[in-house]
Amino acid sequence: MRTVKIGLLGLGTVGGGVYKLIERQKEEMADKTGANVEIAGILVHNLNKKREGVDENLLTDRWEDIIGNDEIEIIIEVMGGVEPARTMIGEALRAGKNVVTANKDLLAVYGEELLAIAEERKVDLMFEAAVAGGIPIMRPLRQCLAGNEISEVMGIVNGTTNYILTKMFEKGMSFEEALGKATELGYAEADPTADIEGLDAGRKVAIMASSAFHSRVVFDEVHVEGITKITAQDIKYAKEFDSVIKLIGIARNTPEGVEACVYPMLLSEEHPLASVRNSFNGVFVHGDAVDDVMFYGRGAGEFPTASAVMGDVIDVVRNTVCGCTGRITCTCYRDTPVKKFDDIRNKFFLRMQVDNQPGVLASIASVFGAHKVSINKVVQKIVTDGIAELVIVTDAVKEYHMQNALDHLLCMKTVKEISSVIREY
Amino acid sequence: MRTVKIGLLGLGTVGGGVYKLIERQKEEMADKTGANVEIAGILVHNLNKKREGVDENLLTDRWEDIIGNDEIEIIIEVMGGVEPARTMIGEALRAGKNVVTANKDLLAVYGEELLAIAEERKVDLMFEAAVAGGIPIMRPLRQCLAGNEISEVMGIVNGTTNYILTKMFEKGMSFEEALGKATELGYAEADPTADIEGLDAGRKVAIMASSAFHSRVVFDEVHVEGITKITAQDIKYAKEFDSVIKLIGIARNTPEGVEACVYPMLLSEEHPLASVRNSFNGVFVHGDAVDDVMFYGRGAGEFPTASAVMGDVIDVVRNTVCGCTGRITCTCYRDTPVKKFDDIRNKFFLRMQVDNQPGVLASIASVFGAHKVSINKVVQKIVTDGIAELVIVTDAVKEYHMQNALDHLLCMKTVKEISSVIREY
Repeated sequence: MRTVKIGLLGLGTVGGGVYKLIERQKEEMADKTGANVEIAGILVHNLNKKREGVDENLLTDRWEDIIGNDEIEIIIEVMGGVEPARTMIGEALRAGKNVVTANKDLLAVYGEELLAIAEERKVDLMFEAAVAGGIPIMRPLRQCLAGNEISEVMGIVNGTTNYILTKMFEKGMSFEEALGKATELGYAEADPTADIEGLDAGRKVAIMASSAFHSRVVFDEVHVEGITKITAQDIKYAKEFDSVIKLIGIARNTPEGVEACVYPMLLSEEHPLASVRNSFNGVFVHGDAVDDVMFYGRGAGEFPTASAVMGDVIDVVRNTVCGCTGRITCTCYRDTPVKKFDDIRNKFFLRMQVDNQPGVLASIASVFGAHKVSINKVVQKIVTDGIAELVIVTDAVKEYHMQNALDHLLCMKTVKEISSVIREY
Repeated sequence: MRTVKIGLLGLGTVGGGVYKLIERQKEEMADKTGANVEIAGILVHNLNKKREGVDENLLTDRWEDIIGNDEIEIIIEVMGGVEPARTMIGEALRAGKNVVTANKDLLAVYGEELLAIAEERKVDLMFEAAVAGGIPIMRPLRQCLAGNEISEVMGIVNGTTNYILTKMFEKGMSFEEALGKATELGYAEADPTADIEGLDAGRKVAIMASSAFHSRVVFDEVHVEGITKITAQDIKYAKEFDSVIKLIGIARNTPEGVEACVYPMLLSEEHPLASVRNSFNGVFVHGDAVDDVMFYGRGAGEFPTASAVMGDVIDVVRNTVCGCTGRITCTCYRDTPVKKFDDIRNKFFLRMQVDNQPGVLASIASVFGAHKVSINKVVQKIVTDGIAELVIVTDAVKEYHMQNALDHLLCMKTVKEISSVIREY
């Protein structure tokens, strides 16, 4: 029986999980794949760091030791970040090595470039772990659901922000308190920007949209908003409306082009994604044949992410044994434009502070009307010191028109503050 | 560009969906797979039946026209039932044709036999559509999660019974009323036995357990109970306990062997499967690396099932193009025994009518104690005409001990009736 050798790039949280999982699965690999699997080298930044349970002879800080090892057939890249990952993966693919990566930052920008090299060299580039951690989503999109015309992919694909929003919703915490708790538990990084500003989710949306719609969407084309502006007051209203607020990554394939966005959304309690709590992720897909499907699970963490990497490794080894690496490469055979953000239509939940005078509501309504915004519901809430809080829910309207209406409202003397602008699914 | 020809066996609901979906996807197949795809023959029972939108030249009622056509590389079997499907699929595989099937009845019994032929002939036998319709579950189990040691697979895998239980729960219908409604809407067949007695779910459990635990489980080894004994009263109590009642197919890999069962279970409202409503299906998987994952969607129907078939067809065509058919065959490389049903441990929800006299509860409790059944909760409910209704929830106990305790209780004069015995997750 042959042995397939692996080079592992990175030995952080995910890399450590991958190492342990490969060791744990060692005995079974021959039965599962028809070949033995062995780690032949691990690229690390700091050779002197103590690493429990890892064979020190495998460690190297020289890329040449990995790329120059002709016996290595699979590279697992779990370093993260664009460089040097982009260069290394490119070189590995060109050298005829298969690559399994969890690197969303890289794929959301350079996916096309790397998949093209893989295709040319007839090797595999797999990336199940790059989106939603342990949840099978890339293989379902690229294989199981390949007979569908997929019109929508929406998901909770960032565990940190979902944890924060869950704590705000269930425990009444403020955003700052919930972020503090998330940091304490290790769900949020020291610099949480990529999570709370929606960038991490945006990268995943770019990758999912590209696979779902067969047309390349890059990170720059995804409109991204985070959750930092969500207040306890917004959550309170969401509850009143039998809804939750979730950070939603959403991609739609419309006749006018692909929409790809990340923003907080009001979601009815009845929607299956509404029950995705804490750090769990969930991805909802709508296809013309399959109708609605949802995938739920752990979107991050040492072993869940390693599970996705390992599934890819097993697939690559099976391909290696059968001599069919590169059997599925880039599936972006279309060239659909990405729709201008201004033209995307959404329903809106608005909260604003206005003078509590006769005629104010009428004047606000007429501004909305002038900008083609149709109002679905208005609730006047607490009134203090002559100021009334208005909660307005609109019908679906173009972002452009809503932005104009809001700009117009802010010029009105009677409008003191627009406190919240949240989209509604 | 080459063309891969397909023989379709069966043109009922699912077959019709597959035909339409292949036609709909025709233009895209070359981009998706590297080959064109064409239906070259359709085997039907009745040639004279009017079939709208189907090319009549493709129809035949002679198996020889399909099996004898050397150009056909893929057989799609959507006739259902064990024979003649078993014979035909066997012959097709032996003739070097790849097979995609949605046939759970067949695979739950003869899966091993057919996969062995496929392996020997190096062709594909794929069956994503056999379990949970359009929901990707077989490919996730066999590929995405292949790096896990899976310990549990549980699911709502029968849409008819889930529809019935949802109507009983949400609309207060009796079982008979809800079944009537399901029949009216076409969710239940004229003879609903296979659904309501849990047989259909049992077949799916056998197939999922075999893939998840790498050890063959056949339908006969699955303990199966249906939902016909569930009453409105049971549903009422479930609500009081913040739970729902669902028909659960559950398979566990334990040190003492594989457990494979189907029965109604009380499930906490908080469990992700509790929110799977109406005819939707959901499958929950626990793996050592991935932790919990869930798959949700439509478990039946013309197009959802065709979606799963089409995903398999695309995979087979990709394999055909790369010359690697048969790359994944039977993954049952272990031989784990199936545990005796008597030894399976479950928590129980019991409802019984007893004499409303002092000392009765003590004597019942002592019977449970004598049979190693530990009581977690007792609630005495309505009392009428000297009869009290007791609701008892137990800790986990072996089926064997529970059965003995119940037999013993039924011999007691003070116990008038054991109205419900429902397991609790």
